[in-house]
Amino acid sequence: MPLLAEMRSRFEQSRPFDGMNMGFRIHLEPKTAVLVETLLAGGANILAIGNQGTTQFDTVEFLRDAGADIIEQPDESKTDIAANLDTIAASEPHIVLDNGAELIIRCFDNGAPPVGATEETTSGAFLLREKYQGQVGFPVIVINDSPLKAIVENKHAVGESTIDEIVRTTNITLHRKRVVVFGYGWCGRGIAMYGRDRGADITVVEIDPIKALEAAWDGFNTATLEEAAGFGEVFITATGRPNVVPYEAMELMADGAILVNVGHVDTELDIPGLHRHAGRTVIKTSVTQHTMPSGRTLFVLADGQMANLAVEGGRGNSIESMDLGFTLQALSLELLAQDAASLDNGPQPVPTAINEWIATTMLRIMQT
Amino acid sequence: MPLLAEMRSRFEQSRPFDGMNMGFRIHLEPKTAVLVETLLAGGANILAIGNQGTTQFDTVEFLRDAGADIIEQPDESKTDIAANLDTIAASEPHIVLDNGAELIIRCFDNGAPPVGATEETTSGAFLLREKYQGQVGFPVIVINDSPLKAIVENKHAVGESTIDEIVRTTNITLHRKRVVVFGYGWCGRGIAMYGRDRGADITVVEIDPIKALEAAWDGFNTATLEEAAGFGEVFITATGRPNVVPYEAMELMADGAILVNVGHVDTELDIPGLHRHAGRTVIKTSVTQHTMPSGRTLFVLADGQMANLAVEGGRGNSIESMDLGFTLQALSLELLAQDAASLDNGPQPVPTAINEWIATTMLRIMQT
Amino acid sequence: MPLLAEMRSRFEQSRPFDGMNMGFRIHLEPKTAVLVETLLAGGANILAIGNQGTTQFDTVEFLRDAGADIIEQPDESKTDIAANLDTIAASEPHIVLDNGAELIIRCFDNGAPPVGATEETTSGAFLLREKYQGQVGFPVIVINDSPLKAIVENKHAVGESTIDEIVRTTNITLHRKRVVVFGYGWCGRGIAMYGRDRGADITVVEIDPIKALEAAWDGFNTATLEEAAGFGEVFITATGRPNVVPYEAMELMADGAILVNVGHVDTELDIPGLHRHAGRTVIKTSVTQHTMPSGRTLFVLADGQMANLAVEGGRGNSIESMDLGFTLQALSLELLAQDAASLDNGPQPVPTAINEWIATTMLRIMQT
Amino acid sequence: MPLLAEMRSRFEQSRPFDGMNMGFRIHLEPKTAVLVETLLAGGANILAIGNQGTTQFDTVEFLRDAGADIIEQPDESKTDIAANLDTIAASEPHIVLDNGAELIIRCFDNGAPPVGATEETTSGAFLLREKYQGQVGFPVIVINDSPLKAIVENKHAVGESTIDEIVRTTNITLHRKRVVVFGYGWCGRGIAMYGRDRGADITVVEIDPIKALEAAWDGFNTATLEEAAGFGEVFITATGRPNVVPYEAMELMADGAILVNVGHVDTELDIPGLHRHAGRTVIKTSVTQHTMPSGRTLFVLADGQMANLAVEGGRGNSIESMDLGFTLQALSLELLAQDAASLDNGPQPVPTAINEWIATTMLRIMQT
Repeated sequence: MPLLAEMRSRFEQSRPFDGMNMGFRIHLEPKTAVLVETLLAGGANILAIGNQGTTQFDTVEFLRDAGADIIEQPDESKTDIAANLDTIAASEPHIVLDNGAELIIRCFDNGAPPVGATEETTSGAFLLREKYQGQVGFPVIVINDSPLKAIVENKHAVGESTIDEIVRTTNITLHRKRVVVFGYGWCGRGIAMYGRDRGADITVVEIDPIKALEAAWDGFNTATLEEAAGFGEVFITATGRPNVVPYEAMELMADGAILVNVGHVDTELDIPGLHRHAGRTVIKTSVTQHTMPSGRTLFVLADGQMANLAVEGGRGNSIESMDLGFTLQALSLELLAQDAASLDNGPQPVPTAINEWIATTMLRIMQT
Repeated sequence: MPLLAEMRSRFEQSRPFDGMNMGFRIHLEPKTAVLVETLLAGGANILAIGNQGTTQFDTVEFLRDAGADIIEQPDESKTDIAANLDTIAASEPHIVLDNGAELIIRCFDNGAPPVGATEETTSGAFLLREKYQGQVGFPVIVINDSPLKAIVENKHAVGESTIDEIVRTTNITLHRKRVVVFGYGWCGRGIAMYGRDRGADITVVEIDPIKALEAAWDGFNTATLEEAAGFGEVFITATGRPNVVPYEAMELMADGAILVNVGHVDTELDIPGLHRHAGRTVIKTSVTQHTMPSGRTLFVLADGQMANLAVEGGRGNSIESMDLGFTLQALSLELLAQDAASLDNGPQPVPTAINEWIATTMLRIMQT
Repeated sequence: MPLLAEMRSRFEQSRPFDGMNMGFRIHLEPKTAVLVETLLAGGANILAIGNQGTTQFDTVEFLRDAGADIIEQPDESKTDIAANLDTIAASEPHIVLDNGAELIIRCFDNGAPPVGATEETTSGAFLLREKYQGQVGFPVIVINDSPLKAIVENKHAVGESTIDEIVRTTNITLHRKRVVVFGYGWCGRGIAMYGRDRGADITVVEIDPIKALEAAWDGFNTATLEEAAGFGEVFITATGRPNVVPYEAMELMADGAILVNVGHVDTELDIPGLHRHAGRTVIKTSVTQHTMPSGRTLFVLADGQMANLAVEGGRGNSIESMDLGFTLQALSLELLAQDAASLDNGPQPVPTAINEWIATTMLRIMQT
Repeated sequence: MPLLAEMRSRFEQSRPFDGMNMGFRIHLEPKTAVLVETLLAGGANILAIGNQGTTQFDTVEFLRDAGADIIEQPDESKTDIAANLDTIAASEPHIVLDNGAELIIRCFDNGAPPVGATEETTSGAFLLREKYQGQVGFPVIVINDSPLKAIVENKHAVGESTIDEIVRTTNITLHRKRVVVFGYGWCGRGIAMYGRDRGADITVVEIDPIKALEAAWDGFNTATLEEAAGFGEVFITATGRPNVVPYEAMELMADGAILVNVGHVDTELDIPGLHRHAGRTVIKTSVTQHTMPSGRTLFVLADGQMANLAVEGGRGNSIESMDLGFTLQALSLELLAQDAASLDNGPQPVPTAINEWIATTMLRIMQT
């Protein structure tokens, strides 16, 4: 992770977090450990827990040895987790790093609110904007809003790995397969492009007619859900909206159709509806088979979870998009530690200067 | 022009402009005549002049026969034109269609301002927004701001025709030529993509590091002006900013380099600087040769005018982008005639409903 | 023409043709003049005529001034041409350059046959191989058989210019147009690829199932003539075979279909059949309209002649493919002049050493 | 495997091998079991062994249950294998299916030679053609010579999976990486194309200048070994020749370079030379690290074995190319069983009629 390595060198010199307490809620696994180490190198005192169910305890041991205070224990219940979040909030951290806004919300009524926080997820930011508008009395930098994520992660990392994992998990070729992509946002654009490069005959289903027109001018077929359900062979959802492919559409699909979701919302495919009508048989790791009342058979990858991450052996996010995400965090936290007063209160995008510094540095790395 | 044909059928039924006076300033040539006819079919009384220097008088005769009142005469001076604009403003038109905002500005102080206007150009909109902010007491719909134009015209029509006209005018192949594209906006994206499809080795020069990073992830080389000037063979500007390639950069270029502008601003290449130092010899229609003090020779297409339009025999805007632009005009004028009160005053983008109707209709046309 | 320029420098030193008579039949126009000059620079005495109907007499005057003996006069009849060919054969040239084999055949029964000849065309080579097998008592190098022509001229120059000229002549966009390519040889491969790059939905019709399978794995739709006639919007023939699209197939085509031929045989489209049933109206330079008995309208480019060359303003062969063809000629003639004894008698491909020298040199030129 | 499934249905009806003994040497693993079953369904008596080191004994048990006589036992020595081959040859099979020609050679001096044989590999065919020319007194159909394999397996399956496995195994992105492809045969063409689709900056190194020129016109950079060694970041060999990247070239490579071979010959990279000078440390499954005397570090995938197959978790050949290869076998064996007299003796390509039937059928399958 060359971007983060540059940050670490800088932090070792400048010690931007000296004497500051940071409260963390983060996935605790080997890759994120590098971010924690980087912040420790910058002088931070860290009090952290993981996201439920993803914590790897050898990483926890490693980070404890490195000086972080991780209060999570194995096999905690939801009650334990809530108590942990309360503990971190009660420690009155100067800065908060959150995944999902639960920790941030607990800091609202603190006697000593943080000088600022970062929120990793779009859904956490949505919660703060919709439900707690006006109550967020400190700046919250929303990492996922960075335009760099759209480019590096959504279009290229997700686009490329989605097609890779479909090919690898199913061992089919996409040449001349009729592949239907739902959504022509950044992810959908990438999936459509990388799928065409594999010889697939791509159709885009997009309810926004302006984006649909863009897909057509980019050379892709466009269709409605009903039309596409009738002729598609592989269906990939990447819209961020629930119930994009309802069970009724699945009834229109041809025998052998393959369904894949890569949107963050795991309800884009109506998997519960499918299970009600068509059972579920595991035929291979990460692939389930569903026999429809019509007698036709559908296949689902990773039970409708984000397939590029969730299939067995899936590459997950690329090193580059990890490096990008952590550096967005590190620079945002540094800004909060050094100059939170320059920011407005409430949820806000990553400042342009940070995006530009990262873009410039990543370009330099790519070119050498 | 199938979109506009649909408009005309509708207008013949609904007569949205019955009894209304429209004041026009528009390029008067055969293609735009179709727009004028469409509005006449909707019941409009039209009082019009052309943009200086582009009027074709056989089109004028045709439109007069069709019922439009065109007050322009051949070989008018700037004074005549100003007087013509005054005449139209004084006629107190209900609706105004303008190219460059000069007619709109004349309507500000009218006793009876129009219910609304359309402005075709970005530069006209800029003038209204910067210099006359707060004075525009009626809605002005800015046609060029439509996202449909970015897709259909900038990325695809300009991108494709720029590469076409360079190949046709110079009769060189682009295979393995080092082609430098300045700007990675919509036009630049299209030029880079269509150039790569011709086998060119594309480099993007873009001062916004976020867009530059996007270019790199899209697979293109990136460089600074100075670097690119040293290795490029063909240089294409598409930034919308002046003096993107100053004379000093031209001094770094290799013998035989070809310079092309497709941005709307004809000062992206420093042509005056080049003429001062390196003369100008026409070696072929639309191609000039310039012998530098170093003894090296540069070539310029169309004297730095928008090459996709200005080279001899250049295709100009595609039928599709004409059809799109005129339909944006027709629908915006209809909305102003029928329901101007639903809009805010001042310059504003084309309403989403209009963009969506056109996108939907154009998609239907492309799919049949 | 950088390859030919290198030849000329070499010939000026080595004078490989000193004292030799060359008999020529060649298109006499400005570009070919450069080849004639190159051979004159090598010491050749040249006695030449043009191909009927293509001679430009200002080029003839230029070449006479340069020292070539051109016996063709304006407005000659077929009888005159035959007499001219007899005259050249009777001059007992040491070396012959021919287009169509008529001159070569006249040299068979000469008391003093040439030491060798080059034949430009595939059809001339076919004639020698089929009808005069065993009678060709000297080596004849067939220029058009060079694999370099397949790469540079067929796949890339023809592929690219075919798509360019269709777009320019018709002023339609190909985005999402259903374009049918007949033949998946080198030309067809290029046309399909460059058409897809313009956003077209390509279908390949190919009677050889192995080539059809290649097209499918390359990502293209495949279909039979009957299927494709039913859904296509633009039809392009590039097979080298007659009557690929018979009139009966045209009857299946949708209103507005566009027919284009780029194969060397101008009978790939059944134009006589179309004229018998559907008349012919010129609607625009190089575009004719044909109203079918069904009432539907078809359009034909350049009356079914090779459209990339024959449409008004068509670029013709690229400079690069001209340069390649002439250099193949110059090197083959040099080998015949210096070492004809090393070759077998009869028609034969360009020797590998010549192809390799040209490939190496062209690569060097492309890379600098 | 839909092609092979069609064969099986046909064989169950026609029983082309009824009463015939077949001698087999084949990889005995689950996929090849389907071929054996297909031939059993056609009535064959099968006496078989596996290729040393690849046999899976649960497959052996399965095939024994299905009626095949497999004489191989676990952990056999080279002497045992030779004895097994002798046993099969001594059984005087009517038809032989071989991998490497060792079994075929043993049948030469049999009192009762087979009516015909198939040989899977190019290297086996080479041995028969070079060393035993004139001694092969029965037809031997060489499966690997089929043009269908070049299309389906080499260009697309190998091209695509090579790039996939590099990305997956190293978890790097190829965007703007300088990737050097050695060889522009069918495999190299595929690798270069699929690599470019991932955003890589591709350079082709090819000693045949005609193929190198093709690469340049296809849009790729070209270079010599020495040039490319100096600037490349990822090196992929696909030439079929030994020692394409000698140790001396590795000394020129930059720190962090990655070396990959996908050619059938595992000596394309000079791995022994590398081990002599730079040791070998396993840093990750399928990735070794080598510290050069210069202090720079190189990485090698799968120790220079065919990386698309040999890396941990490598997809291996696609289902489609397996299906193709087995159907080429099944149809060739059927022809030998039914009409060996129609064929010449000695090694020969798969008959055109078989290639065409398979191409036609595979196209039909791809289109539905």
